[in-house]
Amino acid sequence: MGETGTVPSLEHLKDAARRISSHVIRTPLLEDYRLNEILGCRALVKAECLQRTGAFKIRGALNKVFWLAPEVRKKGLIAFSAGNHGLGVAAAARIAGCTAKVLLPTTATETKIESCRWWASEVLFYDPEKDDREVIGRKIAEQHGLTLIQPFDDFQVVAGQGTVGLELCEQAIEQKARLDAVFVNCSGGGLSAGIAIALKTTFPNAVLYIVEPQSLEKMGRSLISGRPERNPVNPKSIMDAIVGPRVGSIPLSVLRQHQVRGVSVSDQEVLAAMSLAFKLLKVVVEPGGAAALAAVQSKKVDLRDKTIGIVCSGGNVDSKLFARVLVEGQIN
Amino acid sequence: MGETGTVPSLEHLKDAARRISSHVIRTPLLEDYRLNEILGCRALVKAECLQRTGAFKIRGALNKVFWLAPEVRKKGLIAFSAGNHGLGVAAAARIAGCTAKVLLPTTATETKIESCRWWASEVLFYDPEKDDREVIGRKIAEQHGLTLIQPFDDFQVVAGQGTVGLELCEQAIEQKARLDAVFVNCSGGGLSAGIAIALKTTFPNAVLYIVEPQSLEKMGRSLISGRPERNPVNPKSIMDAIVGPRVGSIPLSVLRQHQVRGVSVSDQEVLAAMSLAFKLLKVVVEPGGAAALAAVQSKKVDLRDKTIGIVCSGGNVDSKLFARVLVEGQIN
Repeated sequence: MGETGTVPSLEHLKDAARRISSHVIRTPLLEDYRLNEILGCRALVKAECLQRTGAFKIRGALNKVFWLAPEVRKKGLIAFSAGNHGLGVAAAARIAGCTAKVLLPTTATETKIESCRWWASEVLFYDPEKDDREVIGRKIAEQHGLTLIQPFDDFQVVAGQGTVGLELCEQAIEQKARLDAVFVNCSGGGLSAGIAIALKTTFPNAVLYIVEPQSLEKMGRSLISGRPERNPVNPKSIMDAIVGPRVGSIPLSVLRQHQVRGVSVSDQEVLAAMSLAFKLLKVVVEPGGAAALAAVQSKKVDLRDKTIGIVCSGGNVDSKLFARVLVEGQIN
Repeated sequence: MGETGTVPSLEHLKDAARRISSHVIRTPLLEDYRLNEILGCRALVKAECLQRTGAFKIRGALNKVFWLAPEVRKKGLIAFSAGNHGLGVAAAARIAGCTAKVLLPTTATETKIESCRWWASEVLFYDPEKDDREVIGRKIAEQHGLTLIQPFDDFQVVAGQGTVGLELCEQAIEQKARLDAVFVNCSGGGLSAGIAIALKTTFPNAVLYIVEPQSLEKMGRSLISGRPERNPVNPKSIMDAIVGPRVGSIPLSVLRQHQVRGVSVSDQEVLAAMSLAFKLLKVVVEPGGAAALAAVQSKKVDLRDKTIGIVCSGGNVDSKLFARVLVEGQIN
């Protein structure tokens, strides 16, 4: 399929699934009866933290990398990222047999730096308070003839992330569930947009809740203003994966066409959600990846008698922060 | 199928799968490239810690409970257990619409007690240093007309646990892997025996390694002596799930017919394996459930160029012990 429209369609998501499915894990859709009781609804949790490289980002990266012409791909790739997209691109490059440089903020978590060093050909750093990562990324790409893989404002990347939504819908049907709503964390919007496209056909009446860190609701504000809004450059949040500076134009276009509502969560609510996932689901979720579960657990929305999907998008969390979860997360 | 032989066959495992599959999670078979490098082989990890109730035990319990005549089941069930089998029986009872009492040791972990209290109709305690849990269990069963569900020495329970092995083989084939060996933790032997039966047909040359706590190798000794050996009554080990007093006769009969080798692991090796699962696989594994991964990680067996299956059988671990994993587990 070509890119005839400005935003991906369901067919583009299906193409992506065909391209990447033998290289990604079909992560389970977990249901726990105790969790349902605590959340006050039937909750199906897409444990995407179990994905290769510990986050969903490898899906979009693989779809983009396989879509590139072999002679372009061969010259090498570059990505800027808080960590998970860099990991996804570096892993996709290795799988496709090419190289990738990854540009990380100096504030990246230890586990993401360590993992990027394993996967990437080279890891570079930028200062998130002073540097514009997009400018640096483009410069290095131009200088070395590399292809810059955008983290969210890319047609094929959004289509790849949408495979999370395809699987979520398929697995919900397998489990005889009709989804009334889906909760997903949001930063640039690639994952949320991909899921919105998948939901539209299978569960057209399902509401998509996008979850952001408190005071850093750039997508929530963008959906109201109708144009891409920005976050402050020095965000204070433990949710490192979802505090990026801007939202994507492609994701925003997609999300404006759907029934989307914005919710925000605090660091404390996220620690509690990570603890709940540890105790009941036995999965390790990173702060940004636990935002959607946190929104449901802290009862931001009335969900009585509803069946919902919750995406836990990543699990790349440092031991030190996880130790805080084990102590501070026990609010129930 | 009836129980014509003394031990279950592949057909009995398939019957079990048909009975229970809509009530259990088809847990993923995870592969991580960094993990492969660390372990020095291709490792496919069956993340059975993600199973409902946090352990594989619900499979055997459900198969037994659905196999019971409805009028028998209706009178109620009882199980004795270090926790996971009790949880499995209590959950199976709820799913089948009957009641279950669970008999736990006073030394059971907090998380197992808490979870049993949620699932079971009643939780009772015994002193593992003084009481014989089998005698108490039988007495209560007789007094109240309940059916005692044995944790491992039961034809239908072994067949149910074997569904872990069926899935492991199916998923390995889906991932184009030919298994040279499978590592699984062992106590009474129900899980190991079930897996042995499943392996035999699909990967007849695969060696089954059963992993036990150091100095508590009752199955290893039983396989040598040819009769059921016992553990001391006051075992010192963090692997609470696999320190039970005796092995099962049915499991021992099964295991003696297969190519089985015994390996043992220390508490420290298990903490390291739990840390590895946290860091690379993003799953929470309990000490007993991490024994097989620990055996591979600590290079007990030469596995160069091999493709292996590793079962992580449960994830019911207290926060306090997991905090130790985050600190003490970092031996690499």
